[in-house]
Amino acid sequence: MSFDLVIFGGTGDLAWRKLMPALFQAFRHRKLPAGGRILAVGRDDHSRDSYRDWLDQRFSDVCAEKRPEHEEFTRFAQLLHYLRVDLSVPDDYAALAQWLEQPANASPTNGDNVAARSGPAETVVLYLATSPHLFTQICEQLGRVGLNGPRVRIVLEKPLGHDLASAQQINRVVRSVFAETQAFRIDHYLGKSPVQNLMALRFGNALFEPLWRRESIANIQITLAERIGVGSRGDFYDRTGALRDMIQNHALQLLTMIAMEPPSRNDADAIRTEKLKVLQALKPFDADSVARDVVRGQYRRGNVDDRPAPGYLDEAGVPPDSRTETFVALRTEVQNWRWAGVPFYLRTGKRLAEPEAQIVVNFRPAPHSIFPGSSAPNRLVIKLQPEDGLELQLLAAKGSGQAENLSPVSLDLDFDKAFSAEQRVGGYERLLLEAIAGRLNLFVRSDEQEEAWRWVEPVLQAWQRDDGRAGSVRPYAAGSWGPAASSALVARDGFSWPEEA
Amino acid sequence: MSFDLVIFGGTGDLAWRKLMPALFQAFRHRKLPAGGRILAVGRDDHSRDSYRDWLDQRFSDVCAEKRPEHEEFTRFAQLLHYLRVDLSVPDDYAALAQWLEQPANASPTNGDNVAARSGPAETVVLYLATSPHLFTQICEQLGRVGLNGPRVRIVLEKPLGHDLASAQQINRVVRSVFAETQAFRIDHYLGKSPVQNLMALRFGNALFEPLWRRESIANIQITLAERIGVGSRGDFYDRTGALRDMIQNHALQLLTMIAMEPPSRNDADAIRTEKLKVLQALKPFDADSVARDVVRGQYRRGNVDDRPAPGYLDEAGVPPDSRTETFVALRTEVQNWRWAGVPFYLRTGKRLAEPEAQIVVNFRPAPHSIFPGSSAPNRLVIKLQPEDGLELQLLAAKGSGQAENLSPVSLDLDFDKAFSAEQRVGGYERLLLEAIAGRLNLFVRSDEQEEAWRWVEPVLQAWQRDDGRAGSVRPYAAGSWGPAASSALVARDGFSWPEEA
Repeated sequence: MSFDLVIFGGTGDLAWRKLMPALFQAFRHRKLPAGGRILAVGRDDHSRDSYRDWLDQRFSDVCAEKRPEHEEFTRFAQLLHYLRVDLSVPDDYAALAQWLEQPANASPTNGDNVAARSGPAETVVLYLATSPHLFTQICEQLGRVGLNGPRVRIVLEKPLGHDLASAQQINRVVRSVFAETQAFRIDHYLGKSPVQNLMALRFGNALFEPLWRRESIANIQITLAERIGVGSRGDFYDRTGALRDMIQNHALQLLTMIAMEPPSRNDADAIRTEKLKVLQALKPFDADSVARDVVRGQYRRGNVDDRPAPGYLDEAGVPPDSRTETFVALRTEVQNWRWAGVPFYLRTGKRLAEPEAQIVVNFRPAPHSIFPGSSAPNRLVIKLQPEDGLELQLLAAKGSGQAENLSPVSLDLDFDKAFSAEQRVGGYERLLLEAIAGRLNLFVRSDEQEEAWRWVEPVLQAWQRDDGRAGSVRPYAAGSWGPAASSALVARDGFSWPEEA
Repeated sequence: MSFDLVIFGGTGDLAWRKLMPALFQAFRHRKLPAGGRILAVGRDDHSRDSYRDWLDQRFSDVCAEKRPEHEEFTRFAQLLHYLRVDLSVPDDYAALAQWLEQPANASPTNGDNVAARSGPAETVVLYLATSPHLFTQICEQLGRVGLNGPRVRIVLEKPLGHDLASAQQINRVVRSVFAETQAFRIDHYLGKSPVQNLMALRFGNALFEPLWRRESIANIQITLAERIGVGSRGDFYDRTGALRDMIQNHALQLLTMIAMEPPSRNDADAIRTEKLKVLQALKPFDADSVARDVVRGQYRRGNVDDRPAPGYLDEAGVPPDSRTETFVALRTEVQNWRWAGVPFYLRTGKRLAEPEAQIVVNFRPAPHSIFPGSSAPNRLVIKLQPEDGLELQLLAAKGSGQAENLSPVSLDLDFDKAFSAEQRVGGYERLLLEAIAGRLNLFVRSDEQEEAWRWVEPVLQAWQRDDGRAGSVRPYAAGSWGPAASSALVARDGFSWPEEA
């Protein structure tokens, strides 16, 4: 299937840091369909060759350990094209449309993934890796020049709005130009292998479904912890905060994958409808529950990895009186038959003790213990970062002659070991390949996205009012696991975060 | 707790091959309670020193890789004593009783496990490692000289009878001398770590119980396969056969551990009552079901491990027209609410393809598959031989970009890796330590044992009649997995043995 992949923001950070390396990996692993072209679009003046050189240099920085050899990069670069486009100039869109109509017989024919084609690409993927405030403008112009036909898909990077109203506004414009089935909203957590495997584990195995419910599960904890601070993004981050940056999108997406009912088909709309139902079943916040069930924090000076780290208010671009949260921990419930009464705890933060993203499913303890003194409940840990993996924690007899000497052991699945490098796929690589293949399963539907905004809205509003009822912004030391109130939130129900166990 | 352990048959094979090495291991790992003596009893003329020398020589043969250094053996040997006893001479029992009344201050005091004591041992363990036809005679004589008081325990090795009547006869005599709580009937499979762990896994973890039932489990397969033939034991084996040698005891014990209801206490009688209930719930055989549900086989010439191996009828001590089975495969059911309709397949044999003892729990497939083409059901494998281990087989996404590319992966627990050598305990070591500690959990109660005989009795009788209704003795090639009828037995229900999957 021939394709043209157009990257708006082709000279931007996302393009050279993530997208191009992901495309290169797909090329190296021969997963990119034959007959494709990659067109970087940007405002800079570049010839095709100068853009390739520009990218080649950056590749040497980024892909340190898997740096392509010059010969290999050159083969990959045969797919690469560049077009200068000023996004505010309507004629430039027309030029783009014209470029995409080329029969592309200029496309090179040597190399495995590269084949000549006789007509325009069957599929055109337009990847908007620009600042989101340009999305509506770009969509309108694309519609105007007819770049919204059935062969066209549009990929939208986050953040898609900063609250419900702005998200709805973007979606309205996108929908006025493209059908929902043409819109690929990226949440790069959905591209991660272990998240993919959540679907496989839950619905490809009969083993988990009988356990996957309130009768067997005590609580679920989703942690998306970063060790880094805001770095050079202080200005952007201060207008965003952890709730928008991580909870509204990534954490809620993971929650839906954990909590959804089994879909009847492995089909984008069947799956996304089930995910939407979970979001619709989330316990809504009101002013009281924001104060009770949501903890916000902001990091202060501390030690990270044995080095002193500055506080958030000392970071470049952050106003000295900022009340933006760099940490959120919250408690929610999925109000349906499967999950009633089971707490879901979500937390995220910057400058935390470990760079650790994981989902912990804590099972209920055995109802009756015949082995006194050894009651550690079972736990399934789905690890997203720093390493992928799956770990099932059990108790087993140590074998010291007494059956009651139970000790924790774990059954581990190390994806790196289980699957070869070629079988493994990076997050962006997977999402790009899926977008090219036209599979929407791993992309967020507009109603999901809006429902997630709808759910966080009362929290955003309570914090904005900041009238004393919403709970204060609690300081925490850089390098810690966040404010003590985060532990207390979980302890209130008789539980604890994994690192406290 | 001071103890005297008396080994009847102290110069026999079991003593030097299994029991003494196990005691040595316990000594080395400092698990043997202090203040103990080990008294080997036999008909040979030995001084204490000559017995130690005799054993020392054999130790060098047996414990090749963990051969104790001379110094270490010498320390262990300080526990060792020898007494010449002719089992048919009543006075010799009196001498034994007198020996056990010694205050044992002759016992050496150096070495960690060796402590002086001032009076007779608190516990006397009498281990009958003799031919079983001597059991009743020994018990009667022990009773006569008063060696059946509350401090005495008697350990009985298999085979305990060769059918229901003979087993009942032995139990009657044992019970006339000893209380049931003094009788430790050995089934050395119950000493194996993974069997111990079955209890721990099932009842120490909340995870398995909801799955451990007919709703989730399709069938259970217990395989106790040996690669060796009958060797020099042809004469004994021909009077025994695979059903008595492996199924009536070991395979049924494993079945009870798998199928039992959760006991309310980790206590010998609570556990053994639950095991008894399983045996009582086994579907009884009649003449028709023996023919339909039991396959018997006898090995013929073949290749084992790439070497030619003789047929059973060519083995020394085997009559040329023997109809003794060297292979059994059977299908049964546990007729209660938990297991109704779930087939339990047991098989054992000599000269099979692999020396492999394992329990396979085959779960039902997912009721609805959204991932076409990948429906391998989940499976839990409890490995007893050649290596201990636990393996949970799942399907996971390969990560090649398509969620439906599911591949089998397994979560493994390698007991060798999980627990240190010191924590690990051999089967006989565990059973000896438990007998010394007076814990009956891992020993077979007389009613269990008799119920197991009661259940196999119709099969034994049908084969003895051999009137053409019981199914023929099916030949199989040495080095194969047994007769084709074994596969057919399982295939009839739509299943297959693990090696056929």
